[in-house]
Amino acid sequence: MRVQAVVAYDGTDYCGFQRQANAPTVQETLETALEQVTQEKIRILAAGRTDSGVHAEGQVIAFDSSWRHGLDVLKRALNAVLPDDVAVRRVSAASAEFHPRFDACARRYRYTIYNAPVRNPLTRRYSLYVADALDMAAMQEAADLLIGVHDFASFGQPPQGNNTVRCVRGADWNRQSPFLFFDIEANAFLYRMVRSVVGTLLEVGWRRLDPEGFRGILDSCDRSQAGPTLLAHGLCLIEVKY
Amino acid sequence: MRVQAVVAYDGTDYCGFQRQANAPTVQETLETALEQVTQEKIRILAAGRTDSGVHAEGQVIAFDSSWRHGLDVLKRALNAVLPDDVAVRRVSAASAEFHPRFDACARRYRYTIYNAPVRNPLTRRYSLYVADALDMAAMQEAADLLIGVHDFASFGQPPQGNNTVRCVRGADWNRQSPFLFFDIEANAFLYRMVRSVVGTLLEVGWRRLDPEGFRGILDSCDRSQAGPTLLAHGLCLIEVKY
Repeated sequence: MRVQAVVAYDGTDYCGFQRQANAPTVQETLETALEQVTQEKIRILAAGRTDSGVHAEGQVIAFDSSWRHGLDVLKRALNAVLPDDVAVRRVSAASAEFHPRFDACARRYRYTIYNAPVRNPLTRRYSLYVADALDMAAMQEAADLLIGVHDFASFGQPPQGNNTVRCVRGADWNRQSPFLFFDIEANAFLYRMVRSVVGTLLEVGWRRLDPEGFRGILDSCDRSQAGPTLLAHGLCLIEVKY
Repeated sequence: MRVQAVVAYDGTDYCGFQRQANAPTVQETLETALEQVTQEKIRILAAGRTDSGVHAEGQVIAFDSSWRHGLDVLKRALNAVLPDDVAVRRVSAASAEFHPRFDACARRYRYTIYNAPVRNPLTRRYSLYVADALDMAAMQEAADLLIGVHDFASFGQPPQGNNTVRCVRGADWNRQSPFLFFDIEANAFLYRMVRSVVGTLLEVGWRRLDPEGFRGILDSCDRSQAGPTLLAHGLCLIEVKY
């Protein structure tokens, strides 16, 4: 039976999702829990290979298992053995061919900024601290330019092959003071794309770059033109759509 | 010059506020930063000695210093040398006799509960996870009984002496699903009082105890009657009033 699950994790203490030799990963943590619970050697597939330090509320995984005690029992058993920083939110049966990465039609990420005169110890793990005021209207004007089908080579590398064209469906700034949220949805993302896009949008927010300049960077397809790739801890994979 | 400051911290990695030999404390961390910045040996006074693992958004401290470069510069210098999990939010001049503990007329604490079918890795450091449904109306009815001047011996020990009478001015549950917040304000608190009160209110929420039973525990002045003292990580010192 193929099983599909929605997984949340605090990425702080992991070297990303994908299994590596000699480094803690979310994949290894989930596979160890699955083996403990099912007594089977299980390899999982995932929708997105989040980078080191990136969090997830809605990562989607799939795996094959001969588990026969019901999916709700499986969910509870997994949450009982998983460490505090990983949880399985939902478990459901999937078709035998279901692939969480190839079948996904869209992913949504959120980048969170804490924007206040003094940094906040209680929000530091899940947001980037920015002291200076930001021009939200200019940042939204620039973000609007991302919508649609574009070559995003300026903002990242493809995980495989050399196709850097992606379709962005939404790119919205919201202020819930002192937080700023940037939500972006696309069919798929390049490596580091969200963090590079937000790093460049902050240049617009600080008026070092105007929205036309941002358009020029997007059109240049030149990775060296973009602003800095922001730290991972402000980024969270919110949802994968099928 | 006596200086007053509002301090925030993530208590996770500290053995409480008050300095101890051989254990990391918030007091030691602040005093080390003050010494680094001012080149003076400074001892700080604090409004509340928060327990191991308890957080603060609005702890108030005071200290004497001959610093002459302005209080805003002092704040920025302190935040530059303090670790990520401690920050100085505001700094101001105080009268020479100001004492953050003795002069305080009220403290406000918040206990945060994450109430959902599955635990959340991204909120686990600052909230207690409770899976089961809670009867909010019954919990509020019991909380209302706390208001006023009572002997709270059932819920904690006095930090010094043997006076266990305190005046509670507010005790309110608020749901912002999936979070439940319990805000309590009093002239002062006994040791462990908030965590013991909330632990007993949860018994009411689970209908193992009714509000009349809660009143009986309060009136008994018997520490052994109260429910469990909850974990520290859901508790935060929000504000001290003068």
